[in-house]
Amino acid sequence: MADKQAWILTITCPDTVGIVAAVSGFLSQHDCFITEAAQFGDPLSSRFFMRIVFGPGAMTPPKAEVEKLFTSIADRFQMIWKLHDANRKARVVILVSKFGHCLNDLLHRYHTGQLPVEIPAVISNHQDMRSIVEWHGIPYHYLAVDKHDKAAQEARVLEVIDRADADLVVLARYMQILSTDMCIRLQGRAINIHHSFLPSFKGAKPYHQAHSRGVKIIGATAHYVTADLDEGPIIEQGVERVDHTHTPDDLVAIGRDIENVVLARAVRWHTEQRVLLNGSKTVVFR
Amino acid sequence: MADKQAWILTITCPDTVGIVAAVSGFLSQHDCFITEAAQFGDPLSSRFFMRIVFGPGAMTPPKAEVEKLFTSIADRFQMIWKLHDANRKARVVILVSKFGHCLNDLLHRYHTGQLPVEIPAVISNHQDMRSIVEWHGIPYHYLAVDKHDKAAQEARVLEVIDRADADLVVLARYMQILSTDMCIRLQGRAINIHHSFLPSFKGAKPYHQAHSRGVKIIGATAHYVTADLDEGPIIEQGVERVDHTHTPDDLVAIGRDIENVVLARAVRWHTEQRVLLNGSKTVVFR
Amino acid sequence: MADKQAWILTITCPDTVGIVAAVSGFLSQHDCFITEAAQFGDPLSSRFFMRIVFGPGAMTPPKAEVEKLFTSIADRFQMIWKLHDANRKARVVILVSKFGHCLNDLLHRYHTGQLPVEIPAVISNHQDMRSIVEWHGIPYHYLAVDKHDKAAQEARVLEVIDRADADLVVLARYMQILSTDMCIRLQGRAINIHHSFLPSFKGAKPYHQAHSRGVKIIGATAHYVTADLDEGPIIEQGVERVDHTHTPDDLVAIGRDIENVVLARAVRWHTEQRVLLNGSKTVVFR
Amino acid sequence: MADKQAWILTITCPDTVGIVAAVSGFLSQHDCFITEAAQFGDPLSSRFFMRIVFGPGAMTPPKAEVEKLFTSIADRFQMIWKLHDANRKARVVILVSKFGHCLNDLLHRYHTGQLPVEIPAVISNHQDMRSIVEWHGIPYHYLAVDKHDKAAQEARVLEVIDRADADLVVLARYMQILSTDMCIRLQGRAINIHHSFLPSFKGAKPYHQAHSRGVKIIGATAHYVTADLDEGPIIEQGVERVDHTHTPDDLVAIGRDIENVVLARAVRWHTEQRVLLNGSKTVVFR
Repeated sequence: MADKQAWILTITCPDTVGIVAAVSGFLSQHDCFITEAAQFGDPLSSRFFMRIVFGPGAMTPPKAEVEKLFTSIADRFQMIWKLHDANRKARVVILVSKFGHCLNDLLHRYHTGQLPVEIPAVISNHQDMRSIVEWHGIPYHYLAVDKHDKAAQEARVLEVIDRADADLVVLARYMQILSTDMCIRLQGRAINIHHSFLPSFKGAKPYHQAHSRGVKIIGATAHYVTADLDEGPIIEQGVERVDHTHTPDDLVAIGRDIENVVLARAVRWHTEQRVLLNGSKTVVFR
Repeated sequence: MADKQAWILTITCPDTVGIVAAVSGFLSQHDCFITEAAQFGDPLSSRFFMRIVFGPGAMTPPKAEVEKLFTSIADRFQMIWKLHDANRKARVVILVSKFGHCLNDLLHRYHTGQLPVEIPAVISNHQDMRSIVEWHGIPYHYLAVDKHDKAAQEARVLEVIDRADADLVVLARYMQILSTDMCIRLQGRAINIHHSFLPSFKGAKPYHQAHSRGVKIIGATAHYVTADLDEGPIIEQGVERVDHTHTPDDLVAIGRDIENVVLARAVRWHTEQRVLLNGSKTVVFR
Repeated sequence: MADKQAWILTITCPDTVGIVAAVSGFLSQHDCFITEAAQFGDPLSSRFFMRIVFGPGAMTPPKAEVEKLFTSIADRFQMIWKLHDANRKARVVILVSKFGHCLNDLLHRYHTGQLPVEIPAVISNHQDMRSIVEWHGIPYHYLAVDKHDKAAQEARVLEVIDRADADLVVLARYMQILSTDMCIRLQGRAINIHHSFLPSFKGAKPYHQAHSRGVKIIGATAHYVTADLDEGPIIEQGVERVDHTHTPDDLVAIGRDIENVVLARAVRWHTEQRVLLNGSKTVVFR
Repeated sequence: MADKQAWILTITCPDTVGIVAAVSGFLSQHDCFITEAAQFGDPLSSRFFMRIVFGPGAMTPPKAEVEKLFTSIADRFQMIWKLHDANRKARVVILVSKFGHCLNDLLHRYHTGQLPVEIPAVISNHQDMRSIVEWHGIPYHYLAVDKHDKAAQEARVLEVIDRADADLVVLARYMQILSTDMCIRLQGRAINIHHSFLPSFKGAKPYHQAHSRGVKIIGATAHYVTADLDEGPIIEQGVERVDHTHTPDDLVAIGRDIENVVLARAVRWHTEQRVLLNGSKTVVFR
C-alpha cells in the first residue's frame, strides 16, 4: 500500500435503504477498486457505519474532486464522512509519566515500521523517559506540573500538541487527570490506557483494587478520553488469568503486558480509521 | 427475524471492480433493506466473497423472481451464489459414537432454541445415546459397523441422510473414518470436530499425543470433512491452557468443553450461511 | 482413585516455621504416601493454606484414628482442618429457575461420570426443568415463590437441602435473591454463577449493562454466596471477546457457554476440596 | 526479597514415601522459614519434583554448610538437587539476528528491573541491533556467519558465552540453526522462541505455513534447545485468534506480541528456578 494510492472513506449516517448502493455505485462509476469494506447498522440507534478502502483507477479524478463529487450523496444521506489518504502517516503525540512500558512498546513499533505513524513529540511531567525518546530522534518536552497551577502546564501541553499538528494524542500511562476543558478540546482524538478491565476498578490503583477483590482475571482498557473519568468509549480490552499467589506487584507486572498490546491495537486501529464513534460506544472494523 | 421475511445472499466470484455496486444497486432498486453485509477480497486467490442479509420491501418481487432477476448480474461476474431464506431452519443429521458430550450440547442448544435447526435424525454405531436422543423426540438410527463390510453400513448411513433431506451432517465425535466416496458425496456439507489443535496431533488419541509432547495449551478444531483425513478446511478452533499436573485423562476432560463450544459455533455459522469456501480454507463472516 | 483409599487433608492456620515439616513428618511416620500437595502462605494476611492428597500404607491406622492422632499437631498450629475421604462423593443440591443451560451442563457431567458427585435433589421455582431432571432419575422439587411470603418457600427449600444432607448447594441461574438468614445458613457451601465479570455489572441484567457500556469482553463469575449480593469470594471467572455487532441477546447466548464452564469448574474444585477461604477471597489449589 | 537472604532449593528424584517430610524436617530443624513450596509427583515417570523458597533464620548455618548437611538426605533419595541464592542475578546472553522485537522487549524488562538478570553480552550475526544494545550499556558482539565455515562462528559465539559466564543463553529470534555439538554444550541452559504453536509448523516460515493451512488461532512456543530442531522441551506457549482477513504479514505482526510475552515468561521462570526437566517435557512451578 505504501507505493500505490489508497483512500479510506468513513461514513456515519442514519440507516436507510440504498446507502451501500449509492456509495458503491459512486465508487464504481469513478473507476475505484474496493479492497476492503465493512459496514454495520446498529438496530438500537438506527445509525449506519461504513469504512471502505479503495484505490483510484485510470479514470478516477483527483482526491479533492472526488470529495467534491461525493458531497451530493453525503448530503442526501446526512452523512458524517471523511476521505482519508491511507498513505499519509498519522501524527501521534504521546504523553507519559514515570511508567515507560507503553511508551517503549509504541516507540519500538514505530521504529520498526510496525506502527506507520509520525511521532513529532513526546510530552512528560517527568524527565525519566528523555533518554530513550531522544535515542529515537524524537523531541522530548518536559513540562512539570505545578500543583498550584495545573492549568498553566495543561496550556503548555496543548501548545505542543497544536504546534505538532497532532492527529492523535496518546496517554501512555500519563498519571495526570485532564481538565474538562482539555478533554473537550481533545474529544475523539485522545486515547487513554486504563490499567483495569473497565468498568471494574475505576480510579486509582486498580491492580490493588483487583487484588483485594480477589478476581481471577485482570485486564486493561484503551478508551477515548472524555470529561467523565474512565467512562469514555471503549476501543479495546485485554485480559490475563491470575491466581491467589499473585501479589499486587505481580498484577502490576502481568498487567503491563496487557496494557502494551491493548494500547498498541487501539492506536493502530484509530490511525487506520477503523474506529467510529456510536454514542458512548465504538464500532471497530478490525 | 422469525416473523419477518429475511433473505441471505452468498456470493463467491473473481474479484473485480463494481461487484458491490452491482449487487447493492440491484437490492436497492428492488426495495430491499440490507441489515447485515460482509465482504472479503482475497489478495492471494483474487477471489471475492460476500454475504448480505436483507429484508424485502413493499415493492420487492417474490424470492423466485428475485433469483431470476439476479441471474444477469451473477452471470456477468461469474458468481457462485445462492439466495437463502433466513427463516428456514437447516436440517441437521448428527452422527455420534460413544462420547456424548458434543451431541448433548447440540441437543440442548436445539431444545432451548439457541440453535435454530431441525434435527430429523441421529445416527450411531452404538446404542448408548438412544435414550437421550429419543427424550428429545428425535429418531435414533442404530447402524452397527461390520468390520468386514464397512461399505454396507455407510450405504445405510447415507440412506438415512438422504431420506432426512439433510442440509448438514455433523460428526459429533463419530469414531469411524469415512470412505473417500462418502467424503466426496458430503463435500461442503459435513462438519467434523477433531479433538486437537490442528494441524498438530492428527489421527488417533490426540490428547495422549499432546500429553506426551508436553504442550502447554490444547485445543479442538471444527472442519469440513474431506477425503484427506483431518486436512479439511478449518471453520473454528478453540484452546485452553494446561500444565504438567494434567494427566491424559485430564486433557480429555478439559478438551470436551472446548469441543462443545467449537463445534456448536461451526454448526451455527454454517447454518447461518456465514462460512464460504476459499480453496482449502474458509472465509467466516462472524 | 476409585478403588484405592485416598484422603484429602485441608489446613488453614497462622503462618509460621515448621508447619510443613510437622504435617509431612506426621504422614511419613504413619506410612502415608503423598500424591498431591499444594500450599500457600499469604504475606498479607499471614495465613497459611495447605491441601494434601495421600494414600494410607500398610502401617497406617484407620481414618478416625489418624484424625485423633493429628489433633495434637492441629492444636499446636491453631489449624482449621479437615480430613476428607477422597472417594466419598459430595452431595450436591442444585437450584434452578427457567434458564436450564447450567443445570443441563452439570447433569451431563454427572451422568457421564465427569463430575463425581451425588445429586439427591433439584429444586426450582418453576416446572420447566422437571422432565430432564427426572430423566436423570433425580427427584425434582417444585417450590413456587409466593411474593407475599418468600420466607415460606425458603423454609421449604432449606428443608429439602437438609433432608438431602447436602454438602454443597449450587445456584445454577436461580433467579431469586436469598435472604440474609439463608445466606448465613449456607455460608461456605453455596456457589452462585453470576452472569458478569464481577465486580462489573452487579445486579440485574448484566449482559444488557455490558452491552450498553460497550465492553469488548464479557464474562461470568462463580462465587460463594454471602449476604452481600454478588460480593462473595470469587472461585472462578471466564471471559470471551465480543464486538459492536453483538446484540444483548447475542451476549446472553455467548455468556451461556462461559457460565457453564465456569460453574462446572467451581463445583468440581469445591467438591475436590481445592477451594479454601481466605477472608473475602479464595485460595484455589487447581 | 532483594534485601533479605532467600534460597531456592530444587529437587528431582524417584518418587517415594517421606521426601517432603525429610526435606521440610531438615529445613525446620535448621530454622529456615518456607515462603513458597511446590511439588509434583509424575505418575507416569514415577519422578518427584520440588521447588522450595526459604529464608534462613537466626540459627541457620551458612549456605555452604547447609549444602553439606543436606547431602545425606539428597543421597538417601538419589536427588538431583541445587541450592540457589535467590538474590543472585542470573547472567543471560542473548543471541539475535534481524528481528529485534524480542530483544527490545527483554532489554526493556531488564532496564526497568522487571527481569532481574544481568546481560553481559548480546551476540548477533548482523549489525542492526548494535545501537539499541549499546544504549543499554551492554557489549554487542557482531559475529558474522561465513556460509563455508559455520563452525568458526559458532566457536566464537561459544567463546563469548563462556567468557560471559552465562547461566542462560536466549535465542531471541536468532535465525541460525545450531550444530548438534553446540546444542549439547548448551543443554538445559538455552531457550529458543519458535514462532509457531508447536508441534504445528516446525521449521521455516511458520506464519506462512499457518496462513496457507487456514488456522483460526496462531501461537508461539518457548522451549529448551536440543539437537532435534523444534523438538526441545516446551516451557511456555501463547496464542491469539486470527481470521481470513489476515495476510501472512499480519500473522507475523500479531505473532510478535505473542513471542515477546512467551519468551519473557520462559526466561523469568527459568531464572527463578521454576522450570525442571522431566524427560522431554518440563515441570513449570508458576
